[in-house]
Amino acid sequence: MTDRGVTLETLAGRFGLELRGDGAITVNGVGTLERAGPGQVSFLSNATYRRHLAGTHAGAVVLRQDDADACPVPCLVAADPYVAFARIAGLFELPAPVAPGVHASAVVDPGARIAATASVGPLACIGPRSVIGENVVVGAGCVIGPDCDVGDGCELLARVTLVTRVRLGKRVRIHPGAVLGAEGFGLAMDAGRWIKVPQLGGVLIGDDCEIGANTTIDRGAIEDTVLEEDVRLDNQIQVGHNVRIGAHTAMAGCVAIAGSARIGRYCLIGGGVGIVGHIQICDRVMVTARSLVTHSITQPGEYSSGTPLQPSREWRRNAARFKQLDELARKIATLPKAKD
Amino acid sequence: MTDRGVTLETLAGRFGLELRGDGAITVNGVGTLERAGPGQVSFLSNATYRRHLAGTHAGAVVLRQDDADACPVPCLVAADPYVAFARIAGLFELPAPVAPGVHASAVVDPGARIAATASVGPLACIGPRSVIGENVVVGAGCVIGPDCDVGDGCELLARVTLVTRVRLGKRVRIHPGAVLGAEGFGLAMDAGRWIKVPQLGGVLIGDDCEIGANTTIDRGAIEDTVLEEDVRLDNQIQVGHNVRIGAHTAMAGCVAIAGSARIGRYCLIGGGVGIVGHIQICDRVMVTARSLVTHSITQPGEYSSGTPLQPSREWRRNAARFKQLDELARKIATLPKAKD
Amino acid sequence: MTDRGVTLETLAGRFGLELRGDGAITVNGVGTLERAGPGQVSFLSNATYRRHLAGTHAGAVVLRQDDADACPVPCLVAADPYVAFARIAGLFELPAPVAPGVHASAVVDPGARIAATASVGPLACIGPRSVIGENVVVGAGCVIGPDCDVGDGCELLARVTLVTRVRLGKRVRIHPGAVLGAEGFGLAMDAGRWIKVPQLGGVLIGDDCEIGANTTIDRGAIEDTVLEEDVRLDNQIQVGHNVRIGAHTAMAGCVAIAGSARIGRYCLIGGGVGIVGHIQICDRVMVTARSLVTHSITQPGEYSSGTPLQPSREWRRNAARFKQLDELARKIATLPKAKD
Repeated sequence: MTDRGVTLETLAGRFGLELRGDGAITVNGVGTLERAGPGQVSFLSNATYRRHLAGTHAGAVVLRQDDADACPVPCLVAADPYVAFARIAGLFELPAPVAPGVHASAVVDPGARIAATASVGPLACIGPRSVIGENVVVGAGCVIGPDCDVGDGCELLARVTLVTRVRLGKRVRIHPGAVLGAEGFGLAMDAGRWIKVPQLGGVLIGDDCEIGANTTIDRGAIEDTVLEEDVRLDNQIQVGHNVRIGAHTAMAGCVAIAGSARIGRYCLIGGGVGIVGHIQICDRVMVTARSLVTHSITQPGEYSSGTPLQPSREWRRNAARFKQLDELARKIATLPKAKD
Repeated sequence: MTDRGVTLETLAGRFGLELRGDGAITVNGVGTLERAGPGQVSFLSNATYRRHLAGTHAGAVVLRQDDADACPVPCLVAADPYVAFARIAGLFELPAPVAPGVHASAVVDPGARIAATASVGPLACIGPRSVIGENVVVGAGCVIGPDCDVGDGCELLARVTLVTRVRLGKRVRIHPGAVLGAEGFGLAMDAGRWIKVPQLGGVLIGDDCEIGANTTIDRGAIEDTVLEEDVRLDNQIQVGHNVRIGAHTAMAGCVAIAGSARIGRYCLIGGGVGIVGHIQICDRVMVTARSLVTHSITQPGEYSSGTPLQPSREWRRNAARFKQLDELARKIATLPKAKD
Repeated sequence: MTDRGVTLETLAGRFGLELRGDGAITVNGVGTLERAGPGQVSFLSNATYRRHLAGTHAGAVVLRQDDADACPVPCLVAADPYVAFARIAGLFELPAPVAPGVHASAVVDPGARIAATASVGPLACIGPRSVIGENVVVGAGCVIGPDCDVGDGCELLARVTLVTRVRLGKRVRIHPGAVLGAEGFGLAMDAGRWIKVPQLGGVLIGDDCEIGANTTIDRGAIEDTVLEEDVRLDNQIQVGHNVRIGAHTAMAGCVAIAGSARIGRYCLIGGGVGIVGHIQICDRVMVTARSLVTHSITQPGEYSSGTPLQPSREWRRNAARFKQLDELARKIATLPKAKD
């Protein structure tokens, strides 16, 4: 973090926040409510942490108006404290300096085109006919195969693989270990053996998308697998061939999406959710963690599946009864009605 | 894709399909029913897409006899249109040319043996006593440790890791980020601390297997972890130590198999399925997506677990009742019988 | 494995085991009960395999006192046969020899500090201000970014990524494809678009931890993501930002932990378990495979969720009834009481 201080007055002015308390106080970093010191700015957004507000030693707290009176230190009132905190914290982020140019240890095919402002890191590899745009950062150990297109301002942090026919829009960020453009899982059984269905499509990623560590996005069988703009994928997500994900949709870690599913815009998909193939999910759907989506969803709203956690001894008794559920329901249907 | 055209007559003859319509029509690529143009061949296999048949502009459609009358363009009738389409699409796949030899940037141990027809790509690394067979392709950034054996015709696309004692049969394809032969997760608790159980076995992969991106297959504790021939694993699958998977079994993405489970031949394991350790699954078992297999399966057939997706508000009410299920069932048992 | 033999008498003496049978017998490797030959030592710990004891041809079997009488060959009686076997098997493990020094193909920033006894393998990359301790092994293709600290005796097997601000204690083992220190998934929605919340913390890993292949551990938003000492993580586990995992806790493959969850000491988390964010799990909690932990756990013990596997035809009937469960329960509540 930077050691340049900034006054609360400056923060309030720059981000349009209401300041309560001494605007001359200087902060030079961020901290949690529980541990921040007088030189740090903290925030209160999630109600879970409200219990730490009264005891905070932060230099200032970014919070909602409702919480301002309870704040023992100066505060910056925001309509959305998390957004305001994100912007403030950005002041204290010092991105690693990046030098344009191709590292001597990188292996670049003579048929690749690399912008002069791009940086290709150590031990990276770029294949024939691939194009690397302006201000792109290709980190150490990345492998970019043939026929890829990396838009201006993209950042591939390290050890990212673009297999083939992957086109990235502008400012796409991809975290280590992600694999885009591997062959989709297309198989047909012929005379007792599997044969491979050629995967002739590619992957198309819109502007401002983010792809988490070890996430995999397969290329399409005929057409492309598509992420529209500003899609945010966490780590270890699996996106099958020919999936389409709408703009501004965010997915938490370990989501798995089978082939040809289409997901709308502004969806929020919880961690570990599964989505079966060839279905459609409309815009603004939320799915809670670990649910399995087995059919199309046509109405916005929140959806769930699964059973609640219990002590295993109790759970076993209930789970055993699940296997009798239809029988139990039939039995109830035959019982005499209540007299009322 | 190639721009060499091929006539429908040629396709019918080469793949033993019944042609209906003008055999002189030339196609030079593939497309979906919805978007294919007159120069492209499409197919209809999944009934979900039958609604697009009437409006297709494809040059020809590969389909079942039952659908032929409804097809507005020439068609190629196949017993299994997906298989026929796979073969036709293969004509339009242009694999990247591969030059035999070891790239100058690769690091090969002097004790490794590499066939003259094999290709070892940029920034790959091959360890002592490992053997690379004829026509093998080791892609960019692969790491092959000591004592591995890569059979003729294998393809490791990029950034694949074979840790140690991994033996691949012929024509095995491994996608980027896959890790084979890492230490199995063998631990014993001793006086309040974990000690590691040595993992002295290896990994044995049969001919014609395919291993998806970021899939992990641990090496065995004593004996080997084994995939028999023609096993097909999608992305992000986890195979624990000493698992055995029977020939021709296919698994969709994100399946997780705990140690020493034995899975039969011709099984189809849906996406995200979990299989606990030390159990056995017989041949020809299907398990639907996200199910958890907690006990051995001795009868072929289809198996499932889980609960259906619902709007969260309804789901919460039902899920709460799941915790009372045993109590409800006991109560029903004490109720008076219906008079019938 | 070594071909140096060791007598049963020596094993008994070295590991404090009771020997029954001929102590002069020599073994030079390990095997399973089913397949071990006379030169191999086997073990019986899991009752599942007791059926193989009577027919074993092992040179000796490590087992519990209760099983000794049924053993047809010499045996070594242990309070915990798995622990004793682990120690014995360690004698037959021959770790690859490691030469100190930096491989010529590795790329090391001039500002990195590498101990003279450390080994940096081929095609590894080490960034500015990172410190590599004594006897560390950095395997082929690892990428260590800026500002990391790798403690004495750590082993990064191959293709491990430490993105930035990752500090490893002593003797940490990390398997291929693991990514530590990637940006946590912190997003805030602002005027219809996502903005990134800076992830200013790091990752802190205690002594003797183990991190499985393709596991991901994100760095913290403000403070660090923390694993205390002797935490053992299997493959493909996802650990969100600011998670804290207590000492000696072990997790099987594919566990997913959302941000800011705190997990106690000596917990055993089954394969594929999900843990939602911002909750706390106390010490000595076991969670069975594939369960989802949606709320804090304050009592030690075993917990579960999910439904049992069934043939799909039966499952479908029961699953359909799950959607009526609340309605069924309400109906039961209105029924006349049993006359007793």
